[in-house]
Amino acid sequence: MSEKTIPYKIYLSENEIPKYWYNLNAAMKEKHDPFLNPATLKPCTKEELCQVFCKECVDQELDTTNLYIEIPQEIRDFYRMYRPSPLVRAYCLEKALGTPAKIYYKFEGNNTSGSHKLNSAVAQAYYAKKQGLKSITTETGAGQWGTALSMASAYFGLDLTVFMVKVSSEQKPHRREVMRTYGAKVIASPSETTEAGRKILREFPGTGGSLGCAISEAVEKAMTTDSCRYVLGSVLDHVLLHQTVIGQECKVAMEKYGIEPDMIIGCCGGGSNFGGLIAPFMGDKIAGKNNIDFIGVEPASCPSLTRGKYAYDFCDSAKITPLARMYTLGCDFMPAPNHAGGLRYHGMSPVVSKLYHDGLIRAKTVEQTKVFEAAEQFARIEGILPAPESSHAIRVAIDEALKCKETGEAKTILFGLTGTGYFDMTSYKQFNDGTMTDFIPTDDDLKQGFESIPDIAVNK
Amino acid sequence: MSEKTIPYKIYLSENEIPKYWYNLNAAMKEKHDPFLNPATLKPCTKEELCQVFCKECVDQELDTTNLYIEIPQEIRDFYRMYRPSPLVRAYCLEKALGTPAKIYYKFEGNNTSGSHKLNSAVAQAYYAKKQGLKSITTETGAGQWGTALSMASAYFGLDLTVFMVKVSSEQKPHRREVMRTYGAKVIASPSETTEAGRKILREFPGTGGSLGCAISEAVEKAMTTDSCRYVLGSVLDHVLLHQTVIGQECKVAMEKYGIEPDMIIGCCGGGSNFGGLIAPFMGDKIAGKNNIDFIGVEPASCPSLTRGKYAYDFCDSAKITPLARMYTLGCDFMPAPNHAGGLRYHGMSPVVSKLYHDGLIRAKTVEQTKVFEAAEQFARIEGILPAPESSHAIRVAIDEALKCKETGEAKTILFGLTGTGYFDMTSYKQFNDGTMTDFIPTDDDLKQGFESIPDIAVNK
Repeated sequence: MSEKTIPYKIYLSENEIPKYWYNLNAAMKEKHDPFLNPATLKPCTKEELCQVFCKECVDQELDTTNLYIEIPQEIRDFYRMYRPSPLVRAYCLEKALGTPAKIYYKFEGNNTSGSHKLNSAVAQAYYAKKQGLKSITTETGAGQWGTALSMASAYFGLDLTVFMVKVSSEQKPHRREVMRTYGAKVIASPSETTEAGRKILREFPGTGGSLGCAISEAVEKAMTTDSCRYVLGSVLDHVLLHQTVIGQECKVAMEKYGIEPDMIIGCCGGGSNFGGLIAPFMGDKIAGKNNIDFIGVEPASCPSLTRGKYAYDFCDSAKITPLARMYTLGCDFMPAPNHAGGLRYHGMSPVVSKLYHDGLIRAKTVEQTKVFEAAEQFARIEGILPAPESSHAIRVAIDEALKCKETGEAKTILFGLTGTGYFDMTSYKQFNDGTMTDFIPTDDDLKQGFESIPDIAVNK
Repeated sequence: MSEKTIPYKIYLSENEIPKYWYNLNAAMKEKHDPFLNPATLKPCTKEELCQVFCKECVDQELDTTNLYIEIPQEIRDFYRMYRPSPLVRAYCLEKALGTPAKIYYKFEGNNTSGSHKLNSAVAQAYYAKKQGLKSITTETGAGQWGTALSMASAYFGLDLTVFMVKVSSEQKPHRREVMRTYGAKVIASPSETTEAGRKILREFPGTGGSLGCAISEAVEKAMTTDSCRYVLGSVLDHVLLHQTVIGQECKVAMEKYGIEPDMIIGCCGGGSNFGGLIAPFMGDKIAGKNNIDFIGVEPASCPSLTRGKYAYDFCDSAKITPLARMYTLGCDFMPAPNHAGGLRYHGMSPVVSKLYHDGLIRAKTVEQTKVFEAAEQFARIEGILPAPESSHAIRVAIDEALKCKETGEAKTILFGLTGTGYFDMTSYKQFNDGTMTDFIPTDDDLKQGFESIPDIAVNK
């Protein structure tokens, strides 16, 4: 098919929405190590996980054999409200850069949650409803995940309580209001509504809260409420699984036009977006069918893949979750205060960590002023105002396209544009005002975080 | 074609983006009265208008003979970045309402400006560039128009100065930041940068500004700057013309699936969105080819069509523009302070006014608490968080669908979903908190505004 026939936006039809999620765990020859119960240091049982999470999500979490897991019709019906998402050919960006590279991006921001998070939120809300639960709880930092889950909960008629990190709740009152509009109960964390919250408030009366504390409150609330479970927006295998609709739609759209990507670039926070984007392509790579260069991009100020340790660590800073083997900066790690966007998680999805450990993907770090430069350039040229998180991928995509300009290579670059930046204008303002700064932690800076990695036998 | 085959979202292909705008002025048997020069009370000449506006926009403004006006390739290329916009079948809403009605909406919010405004912004920026201008000016209230024009100006490499009503600029700093990200210079109005601004500041030192004052500053800046023109986002015929891409895409998509609308509903502020939505259908109605019920919806607190006078009036409150014959509440009219959304213009597009005067369209008013009830219901059921403006159309569409439920009629309803509400969360918060109130002006309340309508011969 000739170049000319590729439109700006490739839209699949609604009956091309994937009918199955792609289980990367089944495609991987070596599986990642299992979650451990921190009390016994033995692999978590299904029963243990089911006390916190919905049953079918736990089944998916532990499934390492079925390559395709069917997407229930009810979830596909919801997907039809905003999927398939467009695969965009960045003709304007290519022209502006003067590069022979062909740049594509998969745009997940065209829904009210403003990001890919909705792909897993609807699945998890559906399974909670199907299990007969009345309510779910979660935590949210910047608010994308809380918004997505609010939308999904409203649709399925579930009560939702969101513990929103207090400082975010104060800085982003509009995010909170979107969640309330969708019927969610939003509680600034730490709060007086849980033991965990009260404890923190006694110890640190003026605290602005943290994601770790919000997780503790949400888990406690779920475990002490009848017919309630806790729901998480990234990191876990079943979340990554739900995000594989992104990669599968890309693959179908590209095959339809005979496009073969040379590199696939995604931003990496907890890893679910990046994992979901690359999943089916990675399956092919493992099977020897392609040699795609996969690049996960993380902030220089929160470099879990590139500078973290591959070790068993808690998934939260309150140390109440199972232990996961992953690249981690230590569960006590906090990015420097001048860190503007998301992607501030101390660890990385066990699946993505394992792929990195096995040399199947690369990772890069970028500094935030360079990220916002790319964001602004992209906004002006391609129209879309990107989320700071997504702009990490844009930065590297532009850099790679400029390399092609030097070498004359006409590489095909695909990157994930995970969301929009409408609720990130405070960070954009810093950039516009010229007051944004960078911070690259020294090895000494990272030391303190590493000390919070449990000193247990499996980590020796 | 059977009901079953209609997808949730009908996407046309990019080569189905209209190649021509539909000139409703040419389709109308009786033309609306011409603009008058307020000094001479004679019809404005092309030369007079070209001092303020771009030449090709003036040509379009005055064209009452060519039914189709070609869309330049450069504009169509820009349209390809976000058009065709989806025509959505509101299956979920129909089911939730239990109505036999078939509800469709044309969604114009999937672009960074968040609304239909971009359709005209890109056209006007293109013509300014083509004319060899270096810069353009405009005013913005809530900020949708300013954002759209910032995007278009960045794309075509034009300098843009936006005079943003001071109180909006303070209440919506994030909107201002989006414009800055696209390279626009945003000045809170009234400002010290113009005579008009300085005069107002001397007279009313603490004023929060008004749209009328911002218009005066923008026009003055354009007329006193080399290679600069003023650009407007609604009301004028050429703006409405550009918005006809909305209606044309609807018509093509509906014809493709054999869908015949019984009623078309749109919100009405300046009238360009509503006019653009109905244009090609109205052309057919005038030609006797359909009998569609067209309904323009306006706020009860700013009822220009339903309670205004059909008279010659200024387009701005500073009384520096030509006189237009339109339904108007008087150029001094200001909606009550508790009015939350947009749609606060004192007048109405001369085209829409004429159609209303001739009985070709109906108009309805709705109160804002009822509007936000509909907005919340729609958000929860259909996923999309609507702009308050768009929600006026949603309110009436839901009401009409509920009437169908009573009568058992399976009417086909099309409404315009002009934009998203991400930057309107302050108003949503009022609604969520239960502090939003309604205001219906009494006849006495309206009297003061009417007194600002010029007391000239043509109005007797």
